[in-house]
Amino acid sequence: MIASREETSSPGGPPGNGGGTVTGPGAADLLRDLAGTGRDLRRGGFSRHMFTDAEMALREWFVAEASARGLSVEVDRNANLWAWWVPADVGLTERAVVTGSHLDSVPGGGAFDGPLGVVSALRAVDLLRAAGVRPRRPLGLVVFAEEEGGRFGVPCLGSRLLAGSTSRAEALALRDLDGVSLAEAAARVGLDASRIGPDPERMDRIGCFVELHVEQGRGLVDLGEPLAVASSVLANGRWGFRFTGEGNHAGATPMDSRADPLLPAAHVVLAARRVAAAGDSLRATVGKLIPRPGGTNVVASSADLWLDARGPDMQRTRRMVEEITTAAREAAEVEGCGLEVRQEAANTEVHFDAVLRDQIRDLLTSREAQARTGSRDVPLLATGAGHDAAVLAAAPGGRPVPTAMLFVRNPTGVSHSPAEHAEDDDCERGAAALALVLGRLLVEGAQPS
Amino acid sequence: MIASREETSSPGGPPGNGGGTVTGPGAADLLRDLAGTGRDLRRGGFSRHMFTDAEMALREWFVAEASARGLSVEVDRNANLWAWWVPADVGLTERAVVTGSHLDSVPGGGAFDGPLGVVSALRAVDLLRAAGVRPRRPLGLVVFAEEEGGRFGVPCLGSRLLAGSTSRAEALALRDLDGVSLAEAAARVGLDASRIGPDPERMDRIGCFVELHVEQGRGLVDLGEPLAVASSVLANGRWGFRFTGEGNHAGATPMDSRADPLLPAAHVVLAARRVAAAGDSLRATVGKLIPRPGGTNVVASSADLWLDARGPDMQRTRRMVEEITTAAREAAEVEGCGLEVRQEAANTEVHFDAVLRDQIRDLLTSREAQARTGSRDVPLLATGAGHDAAVLAAAPGGRPVPTAMLFVRNPTGVSHSPAEHAEDDDCERGAAALALVLGRLLVEGAQPS
Repeated sequence: MIASREETSSPGGPPGNGGGTVTGPGAADLLRDLAGTGRDLRRGGFSRHMFTDAEMALREWFVAEASARGLSVEVDRNANLWAWWVPADVGLTERAVVTGSHLDSVPGGGAFDGPLGVVSALRAVDLLRAAGVRPRRPLGLVVFAEEEGGRFGVPCLGSRLLAGSTSRAEALALRDLDGVSLAEAAARVGLDASRIGPDPERMDRIGCFVELHVEQGRGLVDLGEPLAVASSVLANGRWGFRFTGEGNHAGATPMDSRADPLLPAAHVVLAARRVAAAGDSLRATVGKLIPRPGGTNVVASSADLWLDARGPDMQRTRRMVEEITTAAREAAEVEGCGLEVRQEAANTEVHFDAVLRDQIRDLLTSREAQARTGSRDVPLLATGAGHDAAVLAAAPGGRPVPTAMLFVRNPTGVSHSPAEHAEDDDCERGAAALALVLGRLLVEGAQPS
Repeated sequence: MIASREETSSPGGPPGNGGGTVTGPGAADLLRDLAGTGRDLRRGGFSRHMFTDAEMALREWFVAEASARGLSVEVDRNANLWAWWVPADVGLTERAVVTGSHLDSVPGGGAFDGPLGVVSALRAVDLLRAAGVRPRRPLGLVVFAEEEGGRFGVPCLGSRLLAGSTSRAEALALRDLDGVSLAEAAARVGLDASRIGPDPERMDRIGCFVELHVEQGRGLVDLGEPLAVASSVLANGRWGFRFTGEGNHAGATPMDSRADPLLPAAHVVLAARRVAAAGDSLRATVGKLIPRPGGTNVVASSADLWLDARGPDMQRTRRMVEEITTAAREAAEVEGCGLEVRQEAANTEVHFDAVLRDQIRDLLTSREAQARTGSRDVPLLATGAGHDAAVLAAAPGGRPVPTAMLFVRNPTGVSHSPAEHAEDDDCERGAAALALVLGRLLVEGAQPS
């Protein structure tokens, strides 16, 4: 397949082609191959949750694309997919340059969050080969599992397990909304979850990690630039609130005889906005709220909601959550409802490796790179979104992995929504930039940080 | 089967047995036959929605029980089930005495709301026969379809179609949450929905209707009485609110750049409580609220909620809904969200037939009845719950159907919840009272009202 693509290539073509033979489909073409998989007809966009039919189809697609490029593919003990390019003359002890992202989505998500980083990695392999780059260390392409936490509730589950940020016991206790455990879900698709857990040997093979991602804000579109390098990721966490009251008949129950858990739940939605808006760079969101039993003519007996909270650091994030929790407790008491609050995730803020960041920025602002990517400047952008890259950068114990991220312009500034977008040219610019960065790292290595 | 039950009967037994041979299982025994059907393991209680496996199993059970009593069973054009006892010497032109209720439930509902009226109707047939009653007019037992509106959103759908309160076109436009139409759902269980719609001939055959129901409040338990007669039903309606905003990333989207539809939705929950609590006998409930896409790390793009509103009359109910809608519009505007409000149902208040009501009350406070039912008084109770009886009493056009309801004590006062309850003895007292009322109506007929 690769051979036939090279035969059909032409000298013009995508902006990323630095003079070598243009090979195969562009990043946006690869993305279009996925456009029919995991459509969510009710929500719009895509719902591609771990081990669902849609996500398994995307995994098969990745295996086929990587295999067609002669890469060797494996699934690690935590369901992450890896494709390796290990040139014959490269020593097995050399640490690898790794790139990749994820293929799963939030419910009703967009086409770019995750897949753009995966297709760009595949495209970068084609561009590197067309440019005649001869790696001195292995290149790994990785597809992390359950980055969005859309099925089992823990975002970046695959990278967290790999890095040891989530334990084996924590993972084995996870169940989806239908009560299916992670191990059961894995077994149903023929994967063995018995070896799930931290993978220090694999971590040790990663020399550095570069993740390309669609931007999830308006930074680049406002600056008129196609590409950015990440500076940092906000501290973030997720808290689950369960209010319990007394389920009853909506018509027969007088207003003063109610213990309706949806009342304090509504107060939390408003308190989250009030407290976060009053702070600096704070974010607080309730996006999931489930009254039970959920009948129109029934006073709910319980209401579950999840608070997504982010801030410049964990201390300020926790202070905000405490303030919202206080409002929740007061509202629950007024209504005669019970309240349980549990922390489901908490990730400290991450500042990406400064040396790698500057090395990448210097490279991408070189004249040669500007010609290929159309960038005049490559700004540094902070982000409020969590990423597998941030998990690897903050891996507990052992050696920290030098980690970097590239962002590709999103004209809507919207993400986690079907409105998320990136233009074809910008996708190809991103892949070209990624290829330049990987090429440099594969030949010269990362500077020690 | 009936014969063998009579053979095994004994002279003691249930309170309803007025000296004749005791026949078969009591009302509570019949109810226990249903205890394994339609359990909702996630919500607790029962979920028995129209044409689901559970509801079809309950229909089969009713057909078997009615057939075992020698009743002739039919399904009407609107999926309501009918069982007829037409003594050989009764003229076909005589209008029938009809009793019954429903077998469907709200999501996660209790065991009594609906089924108690159906099992009491079957039990009343046994008691009438044991007492040697010789009907001068037909007795109809009816199981109305989709009383709770749990699948297609319109409560009392079966009785409303029968009575012409919901049109054929309105019914055919209904779809469940999975997008399945009423006609498709009917076809899947082998029912033909092509003849759905008003059924004036069948309506004309109903001389009077008596529905027994578990009480959905604390009226009887506070009075220390087992049985009541209904006076009236609150006006009630359902309004759907859809807020639309901009779905986005929970981490990457600053608080001042959001159009989050869950914010105005939360304001509606609080406004409903505030406005209803300030009025007299007003009820306003949000029991169903769905943010979409519903991811924890996603600012919702839309939020649907349903307002259940009730009041002493339609005017005061509408005024309350208008006040809540105003609050909704203001909150939507502040957030930059869109709002659509649609009325899904509106039923005027119902005062049950005064002559039939007093006739029943006189009968049930007689010394003979008191001995059988343990009632000292049979109070008149108003209810905030809607019922098929109220639909028949308020049938548009034609002859109004004289309609009455009996309530059976509920020690928890809770309904539409697994906590709903009635003691075995009270169930049997209810069936005995129903048998007395039906016996009188079958022999003497209803007084002209």
